[in-house]
Amino acid sequence: MSEHTLKQFDAELEAVRARVLQMGGLVEEQIARAMQALSTGNTRIAVQVVEDDHRVNALEVAIDEECSTIIARRQPAAVDLRMLMMVVKTITDLERIGDEAAKIGRMTQLIFEADRPFVPRTNDVRHMADVALSMLRNALDAFARLDLAVAAKVVRQDESVDDTFRGVLRQLITFMMEDPRTISHTLEILFIAKAIERIGDHAKNMSEYVVYMVKGKDVRHTGPEAIEREALTQH
Amino acid sequence: MSEHTLKQFDAELEAVRARVLQMGGLVEEQIARAMQALSTGNTRIAVQVVEDDHRVNALEVAIDEECSTIIARRQPAAVDLRMLMMVVKTITDLERIGDEAAKIGRMTQLIFEADRPFVPRTNDVRHMADVALSMLRNALDAFARLDLAVAAKVVRQDESVDDTFRGVLRQLITFMMEDPRTISHTLEILFIAKAIERIGDHAKNMSEYVVYMVKGKDVRHTGPEAIEREALTQH
Repeated sequence: MSEHTLKQFDAELEAVRARVLQMGGLVEEQIARAMQALSTGNTRIAVQVVEDDHRVNALEVAIDEECSTIIARRQPAAVDLRMLMMVVKTITDLERIGDEAAKIGRMTQLIFEADRPFVPRTNDVRHMADVALSMLRNALDAFARLDLAVAAKVVRQDESVDDTFRGVLRQLITFMMEDPRTISHTLEILFIAKAIERIGDHAKNMSEYVVYMVKGKDVRHTGPEAIEREALTQH
Repeated sequence: MSEHTLKQFDAELEAVRARVLQMGGLVEEQIARAMQALSTGNTRIAVQVVEDDHRVNALEVAIDEECSTIIARRQPAAVDLRMLMMVVKTITDLERIGDEAAKIGRMTQLIFEADRPFVPRTNDVRHMADVALSMLRNALDAFARLDLAVAAKVVRQDESVDDTFRGVLRQLITFMMEDPRTISHTLEILFIAKAIERIGDHAKNMSEYVVYMVKGKDVRHTGPEAIEREALTQH
Protein backbone atom coordinates (compact mmCIF):
# COMPACT_ATOMS: atom_id res chain seq x y z
CA MET A 1 0.00 0.00 0.00
CA SER A 2 1.17 3.57 -0.62
CA GLU A 3 1.68 5.80 2.39
CA HIS A 4 -1.50 7.67 1.57
CA THR A 5 -3.49 4.41 1.32
CA LEU A 6 -1.93 3.18 4.55
CA LYS A 7 -3.06 6.31 6.36
CA GLN A 8 -6.56 5.93 5.00
CA PHE A 9 -6.56 2.30 6.03
CA ASP A 10 -5.48 3.19 9.56
CA ALA A 11 -8.22 5.79 9.72
CA GLU A 12 -10.77 3.19 8.60
CA LEU A 13 -9.63 0.70 11.24
CA GLU A 14 -9.77 3.42 13.85
CA ALA A 15 -13.30 4.34 12.74
CA VAL A 16 -14.43 0.72 13.08
CA ARG A 17 -12.98 0.48 16.57
CA ALA A 18 -14.74 3.72 17.51
CA ARG A 19 -18.04 2.29 16.20
CA VAL A 20 -17.59 -0.84 18.32
CA LEU A 21 -17.03 1.34 21.40
CA GLN A 22 -20.09 3.39 20.49
CA MET A 23 -22.13 0.19 20.22
CA GLY A 24 -20.67 -0.93 23.54
CA GLY A 25 -21.69 2.35 25.17
CA LEU A 26 -25.25 1.96 23.92
CA VAL A 27 -25.42 -1.60 25.22
CA GLU A 28 -24.08 -0.49 28.64
CA GLU A 29 -26.80 2.14 28.75
CA GLN A 30 -29.45 -0.46 27.86
CA ILE A 31 -28.40 -2.69 30.77
CA ALA A 32 -28.22 0.23 33.21
CA ARG A 33 -31.70 1.43 32.22
CA ALA A 34 -33.19 -2.06 32.38
CA MET A 35 -31.85 -2.45 35.93
CA GLN A 36 -33.09 1.02 36.84
CA ALA A 37 -36.57 0.03 35.64
CA LEU A 38 -36.41 -3.10 37.79
CA SER A 39 -35.22 -1.19 40.88
CA THR A 40 -37.78 1.59 40.61
CA GLY A 41 -40.68 -0.29 39.03
CA ASN A 42 -40.72 2.28 36.22
CA THR A 43 -42.25 0.25 33.38
CA ARG A 44 -42.02 3.20 30.99
CA ILE A 45 -38.24 2.86 31.05
CA ALA A 46 -38.57 -0.91 30.65
CA VAL A 47 -40.66 -0.44 27.49
CA GLN A 48 -38.12 2.06 26.17
CA VAL A 49 -35.29 -0.46 26.61
CA VAL A 50 -37.22 -3.08 24.63
CA GLU A 51 -37.98 -0.57 21.88
CA ASP A 52 -34.39 0.69 21.67
CA ASP A 53 -32.99 -2.79 21.04
CA HIS A 54 -33.32 -2.19 17.29
CA ARG A 55 -30.66 0.54 17.59
CA VAL A 56 -28.19 -2.05 18.89
CA ASN A 57 -29.15 -4.44 16.08
CA ALA A 58 -28.71 -1.75 13.45
CA LEU A 59 -25.20 -0.98 14.71
CA GLU A 60 -24.24 -4.66 14.44
CA VAL A 61 -25.41 -4.84 10.83
CA ALA A 62 -23.62 -1.57 9.96
CA ILE A 63 -20.31 -2.56 11.53
CA ASP A 64 -20.46 -6.00 9.86
CA GLU A 65 -20.80 -4.21 6.53
CA GLU A 66 -17.93 -1.86 7.28
CA CYS A 67 -15.63 -4.75 8.14
CA SER A 68 -16.48 -6.61 4.94
CA THR A 69 -15.95 -3.46 2.88
CA ILE A 70 -12.57 -2.79 4.44
CA ILE A 71 -11.41 -6.38 3.98
CA ALA A 72 -12.53 -6.43 0.34
CA ARG A 73 -10.98 -3.05 -0.47
CA ARG A 74 -7.76 -3.12 1.57
CA GLN A 75 -7.00 -6.83 1.68
CA PRO A 76 -5.29 -6.50 5.05
CA ALA A 77 -2.82 -9.11 6.19
CA ALA A 78 -2.19 -10.91 9.48
CA VAL A 79 -2.69 -8.62 12.46
CA ASP A 80 -5.12 -6.15 10.86
CA LEU A 81 -7.22 -8.96 9.46
CA ARG A 82 -7.24 -10.60 12.87
CA MET A 83 -8.50 -7.35 14.35
CA LEU A 84 -11.34 -7.14 11.84
CA MET A 85 -12.34 -10.77 12.32
CA MET A 86 -12.44 -10.23 16.06
CA VAL A 87 -14.55 -7.10 15.63
CA VAL A 88 -17.06 -9.26 13.76
CA LYS A 89 -17.14 -11.70 16.69
CA THR A 90 -17.21 -8.95 19.33
CA ILE A 91 -20.24 -7.21 17.89
CA THR A 92 -22.13 -10.51 17.80
CA ASP A 93 -21.66 -10.73 21.57
CA LEU A 94 -22.59 -7.06 22.01
CA GLU A 95 -25.78 -7.63 20.04
CA ARG A 96 -26.67 -10.61 22.24
CA ILE A 97 -26.00 -8.55 25.36
CA GLY A 98 -28.49 -6.07 23.92
CA ASP A 99 -31.00 -8.93 23.60
CA GLU A 100 -30.49 -9.82 27.26
CA ALA A 101 -31.05 -6.19 28.31
CA ALA A 102 -34.32 -6.21 26.34
CA LYS A 103 -35.25 -9.47 28.07
CA ILE A 104 -34.71 -7.82 31.46
CA GLY A 105 -36.96 -5.01 30.26
CA ARG A 106 -39.71 -7.44 29.23
CA MET A 107 -39.55 -9.36 32.52
CA THR A 108 -39.66 -6.09 34.46
CA GLN A 109 -42.84 -5.16 32.61
CA LEU A 110 -44.41 -8.52 33.48
CA ILE A 111 -43.47 -8.11 37.13
CA PHE A 112 -44.83 -4.61 37.62
CA GLU A 113 -47.85 -4.80 35.34
CA ALA A 114 -49.24 -7.74 37.30
CA ASP A 115 -52.38 -7.27 39.39
CA ARG A 116 -50.41 -7.83 42.54
CA PRO A 117 -46.81 -6.91 41.79
CA PHE A 118 -44.53 -9.14 43.79
CA VAL A 119 -40.95 -8.05 44.03
CA PRO A 120 -38.70 -10.39 45.98
CA ARG A 121 -35.64 -8.89 47.61
CA THR A 122 -33.25 -8.47 44.71
CA ASN A 123 -30.07 -7.14 46.30
CA ASP A 124 -28.03 -10.04 44.98
CA VAL A 125 -29.51 -9.64 41.52
CA ARG A 126 -28.55 -5.96 41.56
CA HIS A 127 -25.09 -6.91 42.74
CA MET A 128 -24.77 -9.40 39.87
CA ALA A 129 -25.83 -6.67 37.44
CA ASP A 130 -23.22 -4.27 38.84
CA VAL A 131 -20.48 -6.85 38.34
CA ALA A 132 -21.75 -7.74 34.84
CA LEU A 133 -21.78 -4.05 33.89
CA SER A 134 -18.26 -3.63 35.21
CA MET A 135 -17.22 -6.70 33.17
CA LEU A 136 -18.66 -5.16 30.03
CA ARG A 137 -16.86 -1.86 30.70
CA ASN A 138 -13.62 -3.72 31.31
CA ALA A 139 -14.08 -5.83 28.18
CA LEU A 140 -14.58 -2.68 26.11
CA ASP A 141 -11.58 -1.11 27.80
CA ALA A 142 -9.45 -4.18 27.08
CA PHE A 143 -10.62 -3.96 23.47
CA ALA A 144 -9.85 -0.24 23.17
CA ARG A 145 -6.39 -0.45 24.75
CA LEU A 146 -5.59 -4.07 23.81
CA ASP A 147 -4.89 -4.60 27.48
CA LEU A 148 -4.53 -8.26 28.43
CA ALA A 149 -4.40 -7.63 32.19
CA VAL A 150 -7.87 -6.10 32.01
CA ALA A 151 -9.05 -8.95 29.78
CA ALA A 152 -7.82 -11.47 32.37
CA LYS A 153 -9.70 -9.58 35.07
CA VAL A 154 -12.96 -9.98 33.18
CA VAL A 155 -12.54 -13.74 33.05
CA ARG A 156 -12.03 -13.76 36.83
CA GLN A 157 -15.07 -11.56 37.35
CA ASP A 158 -17.14 -14.05 35.38
CA GLU A 159 -16.48 -16.68 38.02
CA SER A 160 -17.85 -14.34 40.68
CA VAL A 161 -21.02 -13.65 38.65
CA ASP A 162 -21.56 -17.38 38.20
CA ASP A 163 -21.13 -17.92 41.95
CA THR A 164 -23.59 -15.16 42.79
CA PHE A 165 -26.05 -16.62 40.31
CA ARG A 166 -25.95 -19.98 42.09
CA GLY A 167 -26.64 -18.18 45.39
CA VAL A 168 -29.56 -16.25 43.87
CA LEU A 169 -30.96 -19.49 42.48
CA ARG A 170 -30.90 -21.13 45.94
CA GLN A 171 -32.50 -18.06 47.50
CA LEU A 172 -35.28 -17.93 44.91
CA ILE A 173 -35.98 -21.65 45.38
CA THR A 174 -36.45 -20.96 49.09
CA PHE A 175 -38.89 -18.09 48.33
CA MET A 176 -40.91 -20.33 46.07
CA MET A 177 -41.08 -23.20 48.55
CA GLU A 178 -42.18 -20.86 51.33
CA ASP A 179 -44.91 -19.25 49.27
CA PRO A 180 -45.86 -21.18 46.13
CA ARG A 181 -48.23 -18.38 45.06
CA THR A 182 -45.17 -16.30 44.21
CA ILE A 183 -43.66 -18.92 41.87
CA SER A 184 -44.64 -17.20 38.66
CA HIS A 185 -43.12 -13.82 39.54
CA THR A 186 -40.12 -15.39 41.21
CA LEU A 187 -39.37 -17.16 37.92
CA GLU A 188 -39.39 -13.77 36.21
CA ILE A 189 -36.69 -12.63 38.63
CA LEU A 190 -34.85 -15.89 37.96
CA PHE A 191 -34.92 -15.20 34.21
CA ILE A 192 -33.54 -11.72 34.90
CA ALA A 193 -30.70 -13.24 36.95
CA LYS A 194 -30.05 -15.69 34.12
CA ALA A 195 -29.95 -12.83 31.60
CA ILE A 196 -27.36 -11.06 33.74
CA GLU A 197 -25.30 -14.22 34.01
CA ARG A 198 -25.28 -14.47 30.22
CA ILE A 199 -24.20 -10.83 29.92
CA GLY A 200 -21.17 -11.86 31.97
CA ASP A 201 -20.54 -14.78 29.59
CA HIS A 202 -20.62 -12.47 26.59
CA ALA A 203 -18.23 -9.98 28.22
CA LYS A 204 -15.91 -12.90 28.90
CA ASN A 205 -16.09 -13.97 25.24
CA MET A 206 -15.17 -10.42 24.21
CA SER A 207 -12.13 -10.47 26.48
CA GLU A 208 -10.96 -13.75 25.03
CA TYR A 209 -11.10 -12.23 21.55
CA VAL A 210 -8.81 -9.42 22.78
CA VAL A 211 -6.23 -11.99 23.85
CA TYR A 212 -6.52 -13.60 20.44
CA MET A 213 -6.11 -10.24 18.75
CA VAL A 214 -2.95 -9.42 20.68
CA LYS A 215 -1.35 -12.82 20.92
CA GLY A 216 -2.73 -14.68 17.94
CA LYS A 217 -3.40 -17.45 20.44
CA ASP A 218 -6.87 -18.73 20.89
CA VAL A 219 -7.54 -18.85 24.62
CA ARG A 220 -11.23 -19.57 24.40
CA HIS A 221 -12.11 -22.53 26.56
CA THR A 222 -8.78 -22.48 28.41
CA GLY A 223 -9.69 -20.84 31.75
CA PRO A 224 -8.46 -17.68 33.47
CA GLU A 225 -4.98 -18.96 34.33
CA ALA A 226 -4.01 -19.31 30.66
CA ILE A 227 -5.11 -15.74 30.00
CA GLU A 228 -3.23 -14.42 33.01
CA ARG A 229 -0.09 -16.16 31.73
CA GLU A 230 -0.53 -14.36 28.42
CA ALA A 231 -1.06 -11.04 30.21
CA LEU A 232 2.20 -11.47 32.12
CA THR A 233 4.14 -11.63 28.86
CA GLN A 234 2.40 -8.72 27.15
CA HIS A 235 5.24 -6.26 27.55
CA MET B 1 -6.15 -15.24 -9.97
CA SER B 2 -4.84 -17.80 -12.49
CA GLU B 3 -7.10 -20.71 -13.36
CA HIS B 4 -4.97 -23.00 -11.23
CA THR B 5 -5.19 -20.64 -8.24
CA LEU B 6 -8.91 -20.29 -8.78
CA LYS B 7 -9.35 -24.04 -8.66
CA GLN B 8 -7.33 -24.25 -5.48
CA PHE B 9 -9.34 -21.43 -3.98
CA ASP B 10 -12.61 -23.19 -4.83
CA ALA B 11 -11.28 -26.36 -3.25
CA GLU B 12 -10.37 -24.43 -0.09
CA LEU B 13 -13.82 -22.86 0.13
CA GLU B 14 -15.40 -26.27 -0.40
CA ALA B 15 -13.21 -27.72 2.36
CA VAL B 16 -14.30 -24.99 4.80
CA ARG B 17 -17.95 -25.65 4.00
CA ALA B 18 -17.42 -29.36 4.56
CA ARG B 19 -15.81 -28.63 7.94
CA VAL B 20 -18.81 -26.52 8.96
CA LEU B 21 -21.13 -29.40 8.06
CA GLN B 22 -18.91 -31.78 10.00
CA MET B 23 -19.09 -29.48 13.02
CA GLY B 24 -22.86 -29.28 12.52
CA GLY B 25 -23.12 -33.07 12.47
CA LEU B 26 -21.19 -33.33 15.72
CA VAL B 27 -23.41 -30.72 17.37
CA GLU B 28 -26.56 -32.56 16.18
CA GLU B 29 -25.19 -35.72 17.73
CA GLN B 30 -24.48 -33.91 21.00
CA ILE B 31 -28.08 -32.71 21.25
CA ALA B 32 -29.50 -36.11 20.33
CA ARG B 33 -27.35 -37.86 22.95
CA ALA B 34 -28.17 -35.30 25.63
CA MET B 35 -31.88 -35.85 25.02
CA GLN B 36 -31.38 -39.63 25.00
CA ALA B 37 -29.68 -39.34 28.40
CA LEU B 38 -32.65 -37.33 29.69
CA SER B 39 -35.22 -39.78 28.32
CA THR B 40 -33.50 -42.91 29.60
CA GLY B 41 -31.86 -41.55 32.76
CA ASN B 42 -28.51 -42.78 31.48
CA THR B 43 -26.10 -40.40 33.24
CA ARG B 44 -23.08 -42.07 31.64
CA ILE B 45 -24.19 -40.65 28.29
CA ALA B 46 -24.87 -37.27 29.93
CA VAL B 47 -21.29 -37.15 31.26
CA GLN B 48 -19.97 -38.09 27.82
CA VAL B 49 -21.85 -35.21 26.20
CA VAL B 50 -20.33 -32.75 28.68
CA GLU B 51 -16.85 -34.16 28.09
CA ASP B 52 -17.19 -34.12 24.30
CA ASP B 53 -18.01 -30.41 24.22
CA HIS B 54 -14.30 -29.65 23.80
CA ARG B 55 -14.43 -31.36 20.39
CA VAL B 56 -17.01 -28.83 19.25
CA ASN B 57 -14.91 -25.97 20.63
CA ALA B 58 -11.78 -27.25 18.88
CA LEU B 59 -13.60 -27.34 15.55
CA GLU B 60 -14.69 -23.72 15.98
CA VAL B 61 -11.13 -22.59 16.64
CA ALA B 62 -9.80 -24.60 13.67
CA ILE B 63 -12.39 -23.31 11.21
CA ASP B 64 -11.84 -19.72 12.38
CA GLU B 65 -8.15 -20.15 11.62
CA GLU B 66 -8.86 -21.65 8.19
CA CYS B 67 -11.10 -18.73 7.27
CA SER B 68 -8.49 -16.17 8.31
CA THR B 69 -5.79 -18.00 6.39
CA ILE B 70 -7.89 -18.16 3.23
CA ILE B 71 -8.83 -14.48 3.44
CA ALA B 72 -5.20 -13.44 3.99
CA ARG B 73 -3.85 -15.64 1.22
CA ARG B 74 -6.55 -15.37 -1.45
CA GLN B 75 -7.96 -11.92 -0.76
CA PRO B 76 -11.38 -12.94 -2.00
CA ALA B 77 -13.84 -10.32 -3.18
CA ALA B 78 -17.57 -9.76 -2.65
CA VAL B 79 -19.50 -13.03 -2.65
CA ASP B 80 -16.67 -15.34 -1.53
CA LEU B 81 -15.69 -12.98 1.25
CA ARG B 82 -19.33 -12.80 2.32
CA MET B 83 -19.39 -16.58 2.46
CA LEU B 84 -16.31 -16.70 4.69
CA MET B 85 -17.58 -13.98 7.01
CA MET B 86 -20.83 -15.85 7.40
CA VAL B 87 -18.97 -19.09 8.12
CA VAL B 88 -17.27 -17.26 10.98
CA LYS B 89 -20.68 -16.21 12.34
CA THR B 90 -22.26 -19.62 11.74
CA ILE B 91 -19.65 -21.55 13.70
CA THR B 92 -20.08 -19.17 16.64
CA ASP B 93 -23.73 -20.22 16.78
CA LEU B 94 -22.81 -23.90 16.36
CA GLU B 95 -20.36 -23.62 19.23
CA ARG B 96 -23.04 -22.06 21.44
CA ILE B 97 -25.48 -24.85 20.48
CA GLY B 98 -22.78 -27.23 21.67
CA ASP B 99 -22.71 -25.34 25.00
CA GLU B 100 -26.47 -25.76 25.33
CA ALA B 101 -26.21 -29.51 24.66
CA ALA B 102 -23.57 -29.75 27.40
CA LYS B 103 -25.89 -27.80 29.69
CA ILE B 104 -28.67 -30.33 29.03
CA GLY B 105 -26.14 -33.05 29.91
CA ARG B 106 -25.23 -31.34 33.20
CA MET B 107 -28.88 -30.82 34.19
CA THR B 108 -29.65 -34.46 33.36
CA GLN B 109 -26.86 -35.53 35.68
CA LEU B 110 -28.28 -33.36 38.48
CA ILE B 111 -31.76 -34.79 37.96
CA PHE B 112 -30.80 -38.46 37.99
CA GLU B 113 -28.01 -38.35 40.52
CA ALA B 114 -30.35 -36.90 43.16
CA ASP B 115 -31.34 -39.02 46.15
CA ARG B 116 -34.90 -39.13 44.95
CA PRO B 117 -34.81 -38.55 41.21
CA PHE B 118 -37.91 -36.66 40.21
CA VAL B 119 -38.69 -36.64 36.53
CA PRO B 120 -41.74 -34.64 35.59
CA ARG B 121 -43.57 -35.65 32.42
CA THR B 122 -41.38 -34.24 29.69
CA ASN B 123 -43.27 -35.03 26.49
CA ASP B 124 -43.46 -31.39 25.50
CA VAL B 125 -39.77 -30.89 26.25
CA ARG B 126 -38.95 -33.84 24.02
CA HIS B 127 -41.20 -32.42 21.35
CA MET B 128 -39.38 -29.08 21.60
CA ALA B 129 -36.06 -30.89 21.24
CA ASP B 130 -37.29 -32.75 18.13
CA VAL B 131 -38.30 -29.48 16.49
CA ALA B 132 -35.02 -27.78 17.52
CA LEU B 133 -33.02 -30.68 16.06
CA SER B 134 -35.01 -30.50 12.86
CA MET B 135 -34.32 -26.73 12.76
CA LEU B 136 -30.60 -27.36 13.11
CA ARG B 137 -30.68 -29.96 10.31
CA ASN B 138 -32.63 -27.58 8.09
CA ALA B 139 -30.26 -24.70 8.88
CA LEU B 140 -27.27 -26.86 7.90
CA ASP B 141 -29.12 -27.97 4.80
CA ALA B 142 -29.92 -24.37 3.88
CA PHE B 143 -26.22 -23.57 4.39
CA ALA B 144 -25.03 -26.51 2.26
CA ARG B 145 -27.41 -25.87 -0.63
CA LEU B 146 -27.84 -22.12 -0.16
CA ASP B 147 -31.56 -22.79 -0.13
CA LEU B 148 -33.63 -19.81 1.01
CA ALA B 149 -36.92 -21.71 1.16
CA VAL B 150 -35.42 -24.04 3.78
CA ALA B 151 -33.93 -21.05 5.62
CA ALA B 152 -37.38 -19.43 5.75
CA LYS B 153 -38.82 -22.67 7.14
CA VAL B 154 -36.37 -22.57 10.04
CA VAL B 155 -37.49 -19.08 11.02
CA ARG B 156 -41.10 -20.31 11.05
CA GLN B 157 -40.16 -23.35 13.13
CA ASP B 158 -38.56 -21.05 15.70
CA GLU B 159 -41.95 -19.51 16.40
CA SER B 160 -43.36 -22.96 17.16
CA VAL B 161 -40.47 -23.77 19.54
CA ASP B 162 -41.05 -20.48 21.36
CA ASP B 163 -44.78 -21.27 21.67
CA THR B 164 -44.10 -24.74 23.01
CA PHE B 165 -41.63 -23.26 25.50
CA ARG B 166 -44.30 -20.95 26.87
CA GLY B 167 -46.61 -23.94 27.28
CA VAL B 168 -43.90 -25.96 29.05
CA LEU B 169 -43.25 -23.02 31.36
CA ARG B 170 -46.93 -22.83 32.37
CA GLN B 171 -47.04 -26.59 32.90
CA LEU B 172 -43.93 -26.57 35.09
CA ILE B 173 -45.28 -23.68 37.17
CA THR B 174 -48.38 -25.81 37.84
CA PHE B 175 -46.20 -28.77 38.91
CA MET B 176 -44.28 -26.56 41.31
CA MET B 177 -47.37 -25.02 42.84
CA GLU B 178 -48.96 -28.43 43.36
CA ASP B 179 -45.89 -29.90 45.01
CA PRO B 180 -43.32 -27.32 46.18
CA ARG B 181 -40.91 -30.12 47.17
CA THR B 182 -40.29 -30.71 43.46
CA ILE B 183 -39.29 -27.10 42.75
CA SER B 184 -35.58 -27.74 42.59
CA HIS B 185 -35.75 -30.56 40.04
CA THR B 186 -38.52 -28.90 38.10
CA LEU B 187 -36.22 -25.91 37.63
CA GLU B 188 -33.62 -28.25 36.16
CA ILE B 189 -36.19 -29.36 33.59
CA LEU B 190 -37.02 -25.69 33.00
CA PHE B 191 -33.35 -24.92 32.30
CA ILE B 192 -33.29 -27.82 29.85
CA ALA B 193 -36.34 -26.40 28.08
CA LYS B 194 -34.65 -23.00 28.01
CA ALA B 195 -31.50 -24.55 26.51
CA ILE B 196 -33.59 -26.13 23.76
CA GLU B 197 -35.32 -22.85 23.08
CA ARG B 198 -31.89 -21.22 22.65
CA ILE B 199 -30.81 -23.98 20.27
CA GLY B 200 -33.76 -22.93 18.14
CA ASP B 201 -32.61 -19.28 18.31
CA HIS B 202 -29.13 -20.23 17.14
CA ALA B 203 -30.49 -22.32 14.24
CA LYS B 204 -32.58 -19.30 13.27
CA ASN B 205 -29.48 -17.07 13.33
CA MET B 206 -27.70 -19.54 11.05
CA SER B 207 -30.58 -19.42 8.56
CA GLU B 208 -30.52 -15.65 8.51
CA TYR B 209 -26.81 -15.76 7.63
CA VAL B 210 -27.69 -17.97 4.64
CA VAL B 211 -30.09 -15.34 3.37
CA TYR B 212 -27.36 -12.74 3.76
CA MET B 213 -24.88 -14.97 1.92
CA VAL B 214 -27.23 -15.45 -1.02
CA LYS B 215 -28.87 -12.05 -1.23
CA GLY B 216 -26.34 -9.74 0.33
CA LYS B 217 -29.31 -8.42 2.29
CA ASP B 218 -29.25 -8.51 6.02
CA VAL B 219 -32.54 -9.97 7.18
CA ARG B 220 -31.62 -10.37 10.79
CA HIS B 221 -34.27 -8.83 12.99
CA THR B 222 -36.79 -8.56 10.14
CA GLY B 223 -39.16 -11.50 10.80
CA PRO B 224 -40.09 -14.56 8.74
CA GLU B 225 -42.14 -12.71 6.13
CA ALA B 226 -39.13 -10.76 4.88
CA ILE B 227 -37.16 -13.99 4.49
CA GLU B 228 -40.01 -15.69 2.67
CA ARG B 229 -40.16 -12.75 0.26
CA GLU B 230 -36.45 -13.23 -0.44
CA ALA B 231 -36.96 -16.97 -0.95
CA LEU B 232 -39.67 -16.32 -3.55
CA THR B 233 -37.22 -14.41 -5.70
CA GLN B 234 -34.32 -16.83 -5.38
CA HIS B 235 -34.67 -18.33 -8.86
